[in-house]
Amino acid sequence: MTQRAQLGQFTFESGETIPELALAYETYGRYDGSNAVLICHALTGSHHVRPPTESVDGPPSAYGWWDEVVGPGCPVDTTEQYVICANVPGSCHGSSGPASPRPSATDDGGGDEDTTATPRTECSEREAANTPRWGSDFPTVTVGDWTRAQRRLLAHLGVDSLRAVIGGSVGGTNALDWAKQFPELVDRVAAIATGPRLDADMLATNTVARRAITTDPAWHGGDYHETDERPTDGLAQARRLGHLSYRSKASLDDQFGTDAANRRSGSRAVSDPTAAEGTYRAVASYLDYNAERFAERFDPASYLWLVRAMEEYDLAAGAGSDAAALAGFDGDLLLVSYTSDRHYPVSASEQIAEAAREAGVDVRHHTVESTYGHDAFLAQQATLDDPLGRFLDDQTTPSRPTPTSDGGVNVSDRQLDRPDGRSSPPERAVAPVHSGLCE
Amino acid sequence: MTQRAQLGQFTFESGETIPELALAYETYGRYDGSNAVLICHALTGSHHVRPPTESVDGPPSAYGWWDEVVGPGCPVDTTEQYVICANVPGSCHGSSGPASPRPSATDDGGGDEDTTATPRTECSEREAANTPRWGSDFPTVTVGDWTRAQRRLLAHLGVDSLRAVIGGSVGGTNALDWAKQFPELVDRVAAIATGPRLDADMLATNTVARRAITTDPAWHGGDYHETDERPTDGLAQARRLGHLSYRSKASLDDQFGTDAANRRSGSRAVSDPTAAEGTYRAVASYLDYNAERFAERFDPASYLWLVRAMEEYDLAAGAGSDAAALAGFDGDLLLVSYTSDRHYPVSASEQIAEAAREAGVDVRHHTVESTYGHDAFLAQQATLDDPLGRFLDDQTTPSRPTPTSDGGVNVSDRQLDRPDGRSSPPERAVAPVHSGLCE
Repeated sequence: MTQRAQLGQFTFESGETIPELALAYETYGRYDGSNAVLICHALTGSHHVRPPTESVDGPPSAYGWWDEVVGPGCPVDTTEQYVICANVPGSCHGSSGPASPRPSATDDGGGDEDTTATPRTECSEREAANTPRWGSDFPTVTVGDWTRAQRRLLAHLGVDSLRAVIGGSVGGTNALDWAKQFPELVDRVAAIATGPRLDADMLATNTVARRAITTDPAWHGGDYHETDERPTDGLAQARRLGHLSYRSKASLDDQFGTDAANRRSGSRAVSDPTAAEGTYRAVASYLDYNAERFAERFDPASYLWLVRAMEEYDLAAGAGSDAAALAGFDGDLLLVSYTSDRHYPVSASEQIAEAAREAGVDVRHHTVESTYGHDAFLAQQATLDDPLGRFLDDQTTPSRPTPTSDGGVNVSDRQLDRPDGRSSPPERAVAPVHSGLCE
Repeated sequence: MTQRAQLGQFTFESGETIPELALAYETYGRYDGSNAVLICHALTGSHHVRPPTESVDGPPSAYGWWDEVVGPGCPVDTTEQYVICANVPGSCHGSSGPASPRPSATDDGGGDEDTTATPRTECSEREAANTPRWGSDFPTVTVGDWTRAQRRLLAHLGVDSLRAVIGGSVGGTNALDWAKQFPELVDRVAAIATGPRLDADMLATNTVARRAITTDPAWHGGDYHETDERPTDGLAQARRLGHLSYRSKASLDDQFGTDAANRRSGSRAVSDPTAAEGTYRAVASYLDYNAERFAERFDPASYLWLVRAMEEYDLAAGAGSDAAALAGFDGDLLLVSYTSDRHYPVSASEQIAEAAREAGVDVRHHTVESTYGHDAFLAQQATLDDPLGRFLDDQTTPSRPTPTSDGGVNVSDRQLDRPDGRSSPPERAVAPVHSGLCE
């Protein structure tokens, strides 16, 4: 169940301060003093990793984003681990961000106490309409800010060390950042479908996506919360680009090809004089459907803030190199990559692996053969059963791979798997299919 | 030198008719009755393939888009061939399109005679400001329309058969369409960096690009020509996406990485509250620079019409299969593809090759090892010296490859080359570097 911690004044890496940082979070399992596992969500994810109860018989909305990875009998077994996941600052699932209320000078933020008075899990669940929002005045957030905010939450929960930090996509950079900022607090880091930084292609794509939001006439410089408008068209465009980068070329072509959609354009009518003679493609319908549903539920400013954090993340920043950034970490590092990922390609994980080897960190880079693309870590969750299950098992410390003498890629350090078929099919991205509990 | 033919009433594949089709075109060399070569330009290209004179000492603006491929001593040798290139209907370099004047009911279009009164080569060279434009009423155009319009021009020029049709990218589909529509008129077809159709990924990308134009508030349903506005922001966004798809992931990362730009954002200011703490990347600067220059010179409606034509092209349409579409062609077919092309990948050319083999067409598929991406056919023109030069040489008929028994890819049919280094470096896309004549 969503809880919310009020964590007091918080100063961001930008130097800007807010008087009261709120973090929405959930926990699963029971803390025994040494079994805490922190999960880091991806760009637009939330703290709702899985259903709150052991049984899965609620409405589909109760499902979480990783309920085949975290739960009883899952690779992250909640009968053994105490799992914590917090919505990152800048997001809109209940944590402080540009869409959250801006306290007036006379507000008492509530101090260091939990409140479940506003347990939002959906970005579309609005606060009282007449409350002023942060909007453009909310500080820019970084992945480093997420890590520091999470640490604040752990202190609040009485957790002083982590058995593991696990995250996918930009949540993987969040996990890596733990190894860089607080290496002494973490035993294991699993960074999945991620990289030390975005490549030029993805930086460019995300720049174009940001611009789609900021050129929407309803954007109002980021202060649309005070108006009757929301830049949903711009957000939907940004999401279409993101969504494409999360799928692989092959999986899109296999699923949709050049097929015509079996519906008329359900997207907001745009005046395209060539549309009457053109084909509304299944792939366009798929993108429109997903992007427009997303734009209804997610806050456009939050999206901009979070994309910026993803773009700015650089593992080497402040350390001089990726290896130097990891040098203080003496725990175990697991990297999982997917062969068709064009958002964070296999080579990006391998860059981390090389840096870890150079830094003397125990690292295992597990590459999964998949045509699904970046989204495989969400859509094919069974691919994580083996690598993540073994990684968290105390008895099986990952073997230390031998660095290559030339600093190059040592392919033999990598294990190639095919998904075993238990995972959800590609259709999942359209209509989630859940297998229920892991057991 | 640009000429313009008035070709009379023209009925598009949509069934719509315009009273007077104008085509801007250039010719190079001298017609001897059997040496005509038609060049088909890419999406936003023009009829200006190369400088009009034999010497290259004019201003850089005089350079054409393929002046290392076409010219004296070039693979398409203008001392031997009579080369024709026409701006396609729907474009804005002087041919009829949504931005061109709409004749009133009483206009005499000028009949079947050349006029050089308005020899536009740039889309930004406007006609008289108070002339009404076609705008949203211009018929949707198809690649098939381009082919039929070109045939009309050939008749106008007294050319009744073609030694070769050569085109790159969507111009390659135009060349293929000649083999499908008028196989008896063409001896050789060279289709470069192209495919039988776009894949789902590129269909989706182009759909998003179109939407960027049609959601620009200055779009006015396609009738902005009558206003003081132009949807340049939307067009620039569309071009950014196009431009990214023309480059490869590796070449972008090699050229730009995560570098910061060495200028402040020169792009139209957008209100992005995260910009102050963010980095203006070199790759973003490159995209902005190119997209904004492009949006200044190209007509947004033309871009929409041309993108739609590219999306709708399907070699198999009306024929039942790609092989059936090519079955009537008994000339020679050359395909050239580039290994890092993500717009029309090597596999797309190989699909054409397989269809040609099935149809019994003499085909050679030449694959060039390049990291440059789709744009290699423009940026690394020397890669065409060998395949195109040999293809046009009467003495060297391409050998007929043996179809594979299972219909699969017969890799031995393909020849892998590395560019010889004579071609322009990647910087060309930013600042064109020309080597002058081919000799």
